[in-house]
Amino acid sequence: MRIDGDRLAGRLRELSQIGATPQGGVTRLALTTEDSAARALVLQWCTARGFTWRRDAIGNLFIRRAGRGDLPPILTGSHLDTQRNGGNYDGIYGVLAGLEVLESLADTSASTAHPFELVIWNNEEGVRFSPVTMGSAVYGGQLSLDEVLGYVDGEGCSVAQALAADAAILPPAPAITPQPGFAAYVELHIEQGPVLEARDVAIGVVTGIQGTRQFAVHVPGRAAHAGTTPATERDDAFLKALSLHERLRNLSKPDDPDVRFTVGRFVVAPGTPNTVPGAVDFTIDLRHPDAEVLIQRGDAMMHAVATEPCFAGCTVKQMIHSPPVAFDEAICSEIADAAQARGHSTMRILSGATHDARNVAHLGSTGMIFVPSRDGISHNPAEWTAPDQITAGCQVLADTLLALDRR
Amino acid sequence: MRIDGDRLAGRLRELSQIGATPQGGVTRLALTTEDSAARALVLQWCTARGFTWRRDAIGNLFIRRAGRGDLPPILTGSHLDTQRNGGNYDGIYGVLAGLEVLESLADTSASTAHPFELVIWNNEEGVRFSPVTMGSAVYGGQLSLDEVLGYVDGEGCSVAQALAADAAILPPAPAITPQPGFAAYVELHIEQGPVLEARDVAIGVVTGIQGTRQFAVHVPGRAAHAGTTPATERDDAFLKALSLHERLRNLSKPDDPDVRFTVGRFVVAPGTPNTVPGAVDFTIDLRHPDAEVLIQRGDAMMHAVATEPCFAGCTVKQMIHSPPVAFDEAICSEIADAAQARGHSTMRILSGATHDARNVAHLGSTGMIFVPSRDGISHNPAEWTAPDQITAGCQVLADTLLALDRR
Repeated sequence: MRIDGDRLAGRLRELSQIGATPQGGVTRLALTTEDSAARALVLQWCTARGFTWRRDAIGNLFIRRAGRGDLPPILTGSHLDTQRNGGNYDGIYGVLAGLEVLESLADTSASTAHPFELVIWNNEEGVRFSPVTMGSAVYGGQLSLDEVLGYVDGEGCSVAQALAADAAILPPAPAITPQPGFAAYVELHIEQGPVLEARDVAIGVVTGIQGTRQFAVHVPGRAAHAGTTPATERDDAFLKALSLHERLRNLSKPDDPDVRFTVGRFVVAPGTPNTVPGAVDFTIDLRHPDAEVLIQRGDAMMHAVATEPCFAGCTVKQMIHSPPVAFDEAICSEIADAAQARGHSTMRILSGATHDARNVAHLGSTGMIFVPSRDGISHNPAEWTAPDQITAGCQVLADTLLALDRR
Repeated sequence: MRIDGDRLAGRLRELSQIGATPQGGVTRLALTTEDSAARALVLQWCTARGFTWRRDAIGNLFIRRAGRGDLPPILTGSHLDTQRNGGNYDGIYGVLAGLEVLESLADTSASTAHPFELVIWNNEEGVRFSPVTMGSAVYGGQLSLDEVLGYVDGEGCSVAQALAADAAILPPAPAITPQPGFAAYVELHIEQGPVLEARDVAIGVVTGIQGTRQFAVHVPGRAAHAGTTPATERDDAFLKALSLHERLRNLSKPDDPDVRFTVGRFVVAPGTPNTVPGAVDFTIDLRHPDAEVLIQRGDAMMHAVATEPCFAGCTVKQMIHSPPVAFDEAICSEIADAAQARGHSTMRILSGATHDARNVAHLGSTGMIFVPSRDGISHNPAEWTAPDQITAGCQVLADTLLALDRR
């Protein structure tokens, strides 16, 4: 079976119009009018091909092409929501490539043993509603549906209210009994990093997702007048935060090439030019592929903040602890075989970013495929993957899913 | 003549209710409803005593008790606007002490050679509308009225629009021809620093205001995914900003006890925990009493940003350059004499903070009086000066103004 790269490219172009930004990116935050319009458009394409669909209680969409038997589905998909002024491939590619697989099967009236299902996970990005990968986490049981429905966005709108608004935009949902679990789940995604491009590799066989811990650090000081307060009389939260940051970065062992240590948020209060800072709040995003290392280094940081006298008064709170996830070796092999059979170079790669696949890997055989990202850029209008790489990834996805169906 | 310390304390308490914060501070940004309400209340107290008033085109208020002759006024005053969650004395004390002088004169029907005028400078703090000391700078000619009227706040409201809203809250302005200039200007203010308290001195004879330069520094980087981008592939604006900050701080010669170097604003973009910072904007507030030193060290900083290869792409823009100002020695002597005559200890002190007095010192004899600030704290709800110190400062102001009137 050959997928149709032109049709896929056309769908990507068409979808990129919904929420398009002047910079060539897209803003389609979860369950906004733009996101719902994108979801409705994909459903329209699906129902035109006779696929059935359902929507679960957290807003994930499942689109099915029936199989010969009453087996659990072969599942593929990703997400349609984006960052603010994000790119046109992150998530969207995995959804439209999955749709392309279903359509290619329909083109030739091919029959499969399992039903083939395309999933559109709700709110992967976590921009409007926190946390990230919300839809798949409810599906996978990491988050409680009842709790999540009450979460609110910056304007006080709850997830439950946003889901009702989404339902009003989507076509009426047909009554199909949800079938829990899956025979296999394979997610196709752009790498969002520089590794495949740097090594000129077409297909990344994703072995797992590195672990992440996020910490919120608070550094108190005493706000004071910048003109009147001599250096010796200051309790400058900014300078204290710099010193604490340096200590924690060193505890992460920055010379270890596998560690990722990022301060992405750093807020100085009151934040006026002529006031000595009275407080700083900053975040640490710490990632590592080794679960034990992640625990040890993160714990060392928390211990340093809590016990070292020079940081008295400073506090640290862990916001996220997602241990590393390893994908199914059998699926990794199928992906590598499928890629090589089509003449594509491959490499095994660990995902630095988190993905919906993390949340469902305990429910059945799970894997992921990466294609290169130009300059490693993502969450940015400049996000781009070449058309032949887009086509290659989709073909490998199709071949992998069909191989899994035959097992 | 004896001023009435209880009346002054009561006025301070009453005014602290307008814009009061839960922490016991006050938020009364320039020309907001709260600021206009405070201005209207003071005008109401003034007109109740028969004083006349006018408002100039930038919103400064001049309240006059007539003198015997047609002389330029003896001017005193300060400002009523505050920082966000600022204190109850900064500026407000100088205004209400000036009012107390006028009222004490009226109590005894004392006549003065010069008119006595209380001035309420508009927007000293520069929080809502930049820059600081806007009203006195327009009066003193440092800023152009036409330009300033077009400046906008964070929500796009212009100074002109805010002045119209202020006029609608104030009582109708009586038609009085503004009289330019003054015979003398004396501003009473809390020290906002720790020096007087540490030396147990009641009255600071302010010899001048140290010089200030403010710089806005921009540090570019490349936003990237915190999970997928190895340290070696990052162009992390946060780390670059820390390194630049260290370099510039060293150029300020932080071991010089007379230098003040403050980073009060430090904004990281995009500011999400899982994104490597793509840009940082921070401010430097550099102060020194020596005009030449201020020029040399500030220029060295600008030169370093512009020329050192490790800071390629970084930019620095000077926002403010206020050279040091020296006050009139004759006024300094009058203040010291007045204080000593009332039995108060005095010391000569340079102001670390800028004040409206800076902007008018070239228009006539100008001076300032400081009273102690507990713990040196200002721009903070904890700002406090003891009632007897408040009374002492006001009495010295009154005595000084009367001595100047007799000259």
